[in-house]
Amino acid sequence: MASEEQKQLEQHEALLERIKSREPINTEWLDEIMHSADIVAVLDDDAINDEDLKWFFNQDDKEFLADVLEDADDALQARVVHQLAYSDIIRIFSFMPNDEIADILGDLPIDSRKRLLKMMKASDSRELQVLLGYEDNTAGGLMTTEYIALYQDLTVVQALMKIREIAPKTEVIETIFVLNRKRQLVGWADLRDILSEDPATLLEDIMDPNVVTVDPLLDQEETAQVVRKYDLTALAVVNRRKSLLGIVTADDIMDVMVEEQTEDILHMGGVSGEEEIGGEIGTSIKRRLPWLCVNLITAFIAASAIAIFDSVIAQVAALASVMTIVSGMGGNAGSQTLSVAIRGITLGEINLKDDWPLVFKEIALGALNGAAIGLITGIIIYFRYHNIYLGMVVVMAMVGNLVIAGVSGYLIPLVLEKIGQDPALSSSIFLTTMTDTCGFFIFLGLAKLFLPLLV
Amino acid sequence: MASEEQKQLEQHEALLERIKSREPINTEWLDEIMHSADIVAVLDDDAINDEDLKWFFNQDDKEFLADVLEDADDALQARVVHQLAYSDIIRIFSFMPNDEIADILGDLPIDSRKRLLKMMKASDSRELQVLLGYEDNTAGGLMTTEYIALYQDLTVVQALMKIREIAPKTEVIETIFVLNRKRQLVGWADLRDILSEDPATLLEDIMDPNVVTVDPLLDQEETAQVVRKYDLTALAVVNRRKSLLGIVTADDIMDVMVEEQTEDILHMGGVSGEEEIGGEIGTSIKRRLPWLCVNLITAFIAASAIAIFDSVIAQVAALASVMTIVSGMGGNAGSQTLSVAIRGITLGEINLKDDWPLVFKEIALGALNGAAIGLITGIIIYFRYHNIYLGMVVVMAMVGNLVIAGVSGYLIPLVLEKIGQDPALSSSIFLTTMTDTCGFFIFLGLAKLFLPLLV
Repeated sequence: MASEEQKQLEQHEALLERIKSREPINTEWLDEIMHSADIVAVLDDDAINDEDLKWFFNQDDKEFLADVLEDADDALQARVVHQLAYSDIIRIFSFMPNDEIADILGDLPIDSRKRLLKMMKASDSRELQVLLGYEDNTAGGLMTTEYIALYQDLTVVQALMKIREIAPKTEVIETIFVLNRKRQLVGWADLRDILSEDPATLLEDIMDPNVVTVDPLLDQEETAQVVRKYDLTALAVVNRRKSLLGIVTADDIMDVMVEEQTEDILHMGGVSGEEEIGGEIGTSIKRRLPWLCVNLITAFIAASAIAIFDSVIAQVAALASVMTIVSGMGGNAGSQTLSVAIRGITLGEINLKDDWPLVFKEIALGALNGAAIGLITGIIIYFRYHNIYLGMVVVMAMVGNLVIAGVSGYLIPLVLEKIGQDPALSSSIFLTTMTDTCGFFIFLGLAKLFLPLLV
Repeated sequence: MASEEQKQLEQHEALLERIKSREPINTEWLDEIMHSADIVAVLDDDAINDEDLKWFFNQDDKEFLADVLEDADDALQARVVHQLAYSDIIRIFSFMPNDEIADILGDLPIDSRKRLLKMMKASDSRELQVLLGYEDNTAGGLMTTEYIALYQDLTVVQALMKIREIAPKTEVIETIFVLNRKRQLVGWADLRDILSEDPATLLEDIMDPNVVTVDPLLDQEETAQVVRKYDLTALAVVNRRKSLLGIVTADDIMDVMVEEQTEDILHMGGVSGEEEIGGEIGTSIKRRLPWLCVNLITAFIAASAIAIFDSVIAQVAALASVMTIVSGMGGNAGSQTLSVAIRGITLGEINLKDDWPLVFKEIALGALNGAAIGLITGIIIYFRYHNIYLGMVVVMAMVGNLVIAGVSGYLIPLVLEKIGQDPALSSSIFLTTMTDTCGFFIFLGLAKLFLPLLV
């Protein structure tokens, strides 16, 4: 593997130098030795400026350029398109699947988009306008119209001829969709079966009528769950009249999964929207500061719970140190429940209506874990401050706060999901407010009750 | 969609009742109206016991049963295999891809596994033993040996005949691997191109020699990254001699991605290993309590930082309330940096060696956000306690703690990754220890310094 990596690094440097020095590039040869994803990595190198991109994408081999552009991310695609003449863009587009073209067009200023659509073939332009009509994060926004759909009354030999003709222009050839003469989707067939069947058999006798479909407006996360559940290579998107509008393919689903996953990670950490670690500091502040301000409000709420008991703390200063253990452990236990619940929601396993009784499990769990952790803490506190009552207050407060943590950690994300919010983004802030405020309040409240025994 | 869901629910209930009442099932008809993933959902219903499973899987249509078993998760597969006679298992296995069989065998007790391997065809048994030799979470553990590989000197027409013959037994037909006569992998061809080429053309003239390969020992997460980067439908797994050992397919990669994603969510919340929200309470305690105990140690460390300043707090009780704001905001800001860093690590964008200088960005960010948040807090505190010096102490402590939060949130996960730990699992505990302890220490330390001005 090491030498393989070494080779890749050398190829990267060689191509970079070639572009910087404007040496002519034999694209056929380049296509053979380097994968387009690796060529994209070169073009994404900090050393490559807009002029370099313009030069690279002005080569004659538009099919090769289309492959490269397809592998680039949104930012690089936008930079490239910005550098090129409209006529060149149209020629490159002619080699790209139209869901990719729709994605690129969707990110362009409205007038460039209109101009490009006008320059295309009428049929392409119509298809693209339909695709552009769907939100990016829906099944319709993900789908491509380049699939194979054949009438059910074709024979295997007729079907194979059609497939041979359409195949170069489609994204998926393994799954062949089958339509009736009203162009409604009635089934699907596996290319494997078509290849091995008797030539005179009709498609309707091979096809599986049990075809999984989704609505174009379905959210991308749920679309991904359908593809995963049924292990599909291509998912059919249909309207109410069962007309096939397009297909969503596995590679698009993987991109969705990565997007949702990294979004969840950021949201759980309290960063709204996308942020890259090496990005502009201004963007980072914009993404993080508002959320910190929200956090600040909750920090003040928790601090107020303490302020109520200022006089108690003035008498027993040790409380200030011990109370942070109770609130902190509540936060930790709550995060555990929260992450298990968010995982359940992400996998579509739980919802508020059916599964709220599971909260009783979390209550029991909070009480048991609270008793265990509380007892350990209480004993240590007793030996440290030589006061058995302080130890007992700790045990009681810990049990109470861990039960609250379990209830909050389970119900908060479910309620947020129910009212249409992203549970990963906002759950933890509500949770911490609960566990901090209640932790301080229960502990200091009990301490006040037992005050004569503590001083 | 609503009526679609209604239909699914009715089918679910109908099948459940049919199984419970032991009514004969027409599997051909069932296969047509229900997807195997939905049949699995019925078998996974709490109402289905082991006897029911045994009855269901003793039907004659083994091909249908293989489809269903393939869609089941590990736990259900184990239950089913446990109920069946060895001879029936073997007959069902004969309709399953061998990476799935290897997965099931891998979870069986060693003697059942050996017995089943002995009962199989020698060639199948040999292939399975190779697959069983790889760890589950490596490319070798994910791969299947059911691919199409053809010699480079075949013509298109010869290739198509071979493909027609092998196709029903393979997982992927879109990608055809091309071997030289030493059986080394030399390229790949797209079935599309083979279908549309002149029948006399040689495979070596159609093939793309630039084929992405990985070592069988590569970790599954990195394997998934390769498949995603190059948008592959099938990734070739080869040994050092460039012999093709197997292929990893997109659906296996999706399963890996979900596994890694949900693992990350659990780990970030402080739950080690798998835990399902509706699982046994004993398992939940086992997964969560040890981690809470670790947390308890860090809570005591932070509490000790406060205990040092007991006498200061005894004089100015308000400090106990304000200090939690400083430590809490440090934790929040640190979580933000942490999540952005973990996302970067997950996507393979950053590592300690090359990107440690980015820590300076986090320092600047911590100082700026700290100044903003500190100023707001300081002003509120000033108006609440009418003490300008307390407000100033808050501003200074907030800037200091948010800088520490930025540095820790960035470096901790990178260092953990460098030494081979999962950053999602253990980062937040180290981070909270830092931000709590330092937050209390800086704030109370400064308060002690300015004590005469605060009382």
